[in-house]
Amino acid sequence: MTALDVQVNSADPACPGQAPLLPVVGTGIEVPLVTGDSLPYANLDYAASAPSLQSVADHLSEVLPYYASVHRGAGYTSQVCTALYEGARADVAAFLGARPDDVVIFTRNTTDALNLLARCVPDDGPGGGRVTFLDIEHHANLLPWRRGQHRCVLAGTTQRATLVSLRAELEARPASLLAITGASNVTGEVLPLAEIVELAHAAGARVVLDAAQLAPHRRIDLASSGVDYVALSGHKLYAPFGAGVLAGRRDWLDEAPAYLPGGGAVREVTLTHTEWAAAPQRHEGGTPNVLGAATLAQAARTLSQLPSGALEAHEEALRTALTDRLNRLPGVRTLRIWRDSTTSIGVVAFTVDGYAPGLVAAYLSAEHGIGVRDGKFCAHPLLSRLGAPEGAVRASFGVGTTLDDVERLAAAVEQLVTSGPRWSYDVVDGRWAPTPDPRGLPDWAVSTTGAADRGTSPCEPLTA
Amino acid sequence: MTALDVQVNSADPACPGQAPLLPVVGTGIEVPLVTGDSLPYANLDYAASAPSLQSVADHLSEVLPYYASVHRGAGYTSQVCTALYEGARADVAAFLGARPDDVVIFTRNTTDALNLLARCVPDDGPGGGRVTFLDIEHHANLLPWRRGQHRCVLAGTTQRATLVSLRAELEARPASLLAITGASNVTGEVLPLAEIVELAHAAGARVVLDAAQLAPHRRIDLASSGVDYVALSGHKLYAPFGAGVLAGRRDWLDEAPAYLPGGGAVREVTLTHTEWAAAPQRHEGGTPNVLGAATLAQAARTLSQLPSGALEAHEEALRTALTDRLNRLPGVRTLRIWRDSTTSIGVVAFTVDGYAPGLVAAYLSAEHGIGVRDGKFCAHPLLSRLGAPEGAVRASFGVGTTLDDVERLAAAVEQLVTSGPRWSYDVVDGRWAPTPDPRGLPDWAVSTTGAADRGTSPCEPLTA
Repeated sequence: MTALDVQVNSADPACPGQAPLLPVVGTGIEVPLVTGDSLPYANLDYAASAPSLQSVADHLSEVLPYYASVHRGAGYTSQVCTALYEGARADVAAFLGARPDDVVIFTRNTTDALNLLARCVPDDGPGGGRVTFLDIEHHANLLPWRRGQHRCVLAGTTQRATLVSLRAELEARPASLLAITGASNVTGEVLPLAEIVELAHAAGARVVLDAAQLAPHRRIDLASSGVDYVALSGHKLYAPFGAGVLAGRRDWLDEAPAYLPGGGAVREVTLTHTEWAAAPQRHEGGTPNVLGAATLAQAARTLSQLPSGALEAHEEALRTALTDRLNRLPGVRTLRIWRDSTTSIGVVAFTVDGYAPGLVAAYLSAEHGIGVRDGKFCAHPLLSRLGAPEGAVRASFGVGTTLDDVERLAAAVEQLVTSGPRWSYDVVDGRWAPTPDPRGLPDWAVSTTGAADRGTSPCEPLTA
Repeated sequence: MTALDVQVNSADPACPGQAPLLPVVGTGIEVPLVTGDSLPYANLDYAASAPSLQSVADHLSEVLPYYASVHRGAGYTSQVCTALYEGARADVAAFLGARPDDVVIFTRNTTDALNLLARCVPDDGPGGGRVTFLDIEHHANLLPWRRGQHRCVLAGTTQRATLVSLRAELEARPASLLAITGASNVTGEVLPLAEIVELAHAAGARVVLDAAQLAPHRRIDLASSGVDYVALSGHKLYAPFGAGVLAGRRDWLDEAPAYLPGGGAVREVTLTHTEWAAAPQRHEGGTPNVLGAATLAQAARTLSQLPSGALEAHEEALRTALTDRLNRLPGVRTLRIWRDSTTSIGVVAFTVDGYAPGLVAAYLSAEHGIGVRDGKFCAHPLLSRLGAPEGAVRASFGVGTTLDDVERLAAAVEQLVTSGPRWSYDVVDGRWAPTPDPRGLPDWAVSTTGAADRGTSPCEPLTA
């Protein structure tokens, strides 16, 4: 692989956030407002699904003409795609600082990765197959552990108290695995990973890091951190092509039942006998998502080549600018879980007194061309804890975001607080929406068959 | 959705196969030969992974700037992506002739779809959760049914005898589900679907059609055929972006445990209780593969708009041209399962006396720039039945293939039979390869970290 020509846009390192740190696809697209005007879209919803890096889209374009079967087929393009796919595995391992014997399995997303790991936790040993986790997790790192004798620990109001509770739980009831998020998908707060790994290992438990949120924002190093497994999603890591990753220690993965019985997962099949392959193939039944893996690896390579500290400085500038302005507005409250947390990634959740979160989000979109997420962020228990049982508004950002984007958001919230919305809004089909909503959709986004379900999420009912 | 401008290239309907039926990405790319020359690639490996339709790649390019979260987020691009994703579901339902209450679930591929269905077959009823299947299936439609009290029926030497055996088995041991392929992935032979559905339903069993191979070649109509479930893969349907489909009757899908516990699969979560969503969301935990679904739907729309009979005529012309020439060559044997099969899709498997299938495939690639697949095609039991325990060579084709491609293959096999290879070949790392092999790979296909496993497939060992 030739060296990537990473185009770092932030020309003036003294002024981080002025320009996108890396080019992403879709910057500057014009979106319609309810007024009939349009504005460049301010995408502040990276934590749900981030845009594709331009380098990722470019890589896809160069690969696509060579797309072919992997792991078989003597054809030249099959050989190219096999090298590409297995090379993606090696590059993702490098991105994650994997130990030599760690395994990288391509999954569809973090949810898939954690469900896979859930089936690999062995029942033997002192932990007895038990998984311990905190109540602040999002559903991907909550629901896979809700079966069997797993244990949910209530987080305290400080990280210090939370770690004390975790340690006490693991000492009282040994676990095989501690499942922990790297950063809250609601507040962006980062947990003290080194201490958590130390206390888990001291109690005989392995650690799986849910890095869906952390990986796009901070470097993860399995070897130096001692984290045993990590799960992440391509669609949050600027490679939205249907691939995610579970990476970590080989023994559990080699011994578990095949995750997807089918072609590629076996060594030999007769009518009465199946000899399964070792990991990773054991858990990658069926034709793998070659382009998903290749684009995820390209995103990993691009992020790896950012100058040290550039990502953190970019996001800190954006976060500070946003929270400083929001916290000065009357009736606006930014959410945090812990009083003593010291670092956060580019995720800021807030509420506005007198306005439902869904209305705030609809207003930001309809009148200002700003995209945020509202609701309970697939983390229902946490929102109840934070005193926001109806949910909140979440702004989240990354390498393509600029100070202009977050300042537009702060100004729009300020206008809402001081003047109220200029359009009318109501709950339509369970969601807040402008009434009327004259904005059309692009032709290509509408089903030929009409009558598409516009899809209120089952995860986020309006009423708790 | 505006009407698609489907570009059908076969200008002269009297001469099908002269030109590609539809444009695909990668047509005409030059690939290196061991001699140092290069040739336009003849891709005859569609049955493993087909190239992307050009219309699919174009759709991806128009969508990508709008990529955002689905099912949540009031931002304009989130609304666009939600309409796109749910519209893709509606368009795939239309493509499959789904009944009004059928459910379309986006999976990662056919293997994933069949494993999902395997967890949905209810244990109650006279079938007792039993699944009956034939021994000719590929692993995706074999290994998911190898657990529990499922039953494998040996196919006969005629389709007539095979149906008699199936009927006898289902009458002797009622099953909940009959799992059957639409077309053999080895020989391309098509099964008489209407009769199979009739005999299964008469015995009280539902039918799942493994359409991984059939869907790219023949229209499938759930409503008129009575097929209860269908599984297919985007990567064989000219949309290689990590998505597949399971579609069919709602009741089993609504009652089964959630396939991927996580965000999006639930209505409400508290610390002690989970209320799962109905299908399809119940089984689509985590952020869906929006671009995978959208591109799969675009392929479905493009194929739907081909003139009636055009696809069949195109493939029949190619198939006839190839088999006529191969069957005239001494020592070349094309494989078939049944003496009385009457129709086949664009898949032709053959053996060449005196040459291992892997050597033939390596020769075709190294000296002629032709891509085929060799081995046992993830269908080990079938290859043993066919008297080809060491495997075979498989040529497979579709809308982007021309008569020139298959004639190049036939001429190359003829040259092998008459003159032998001009290069030397040996087994290297378990695979036949030219020795030496001076062909390099594109820079972008080689891992930055080097030392990539070039990936012999665990599914296809050289020795049985």
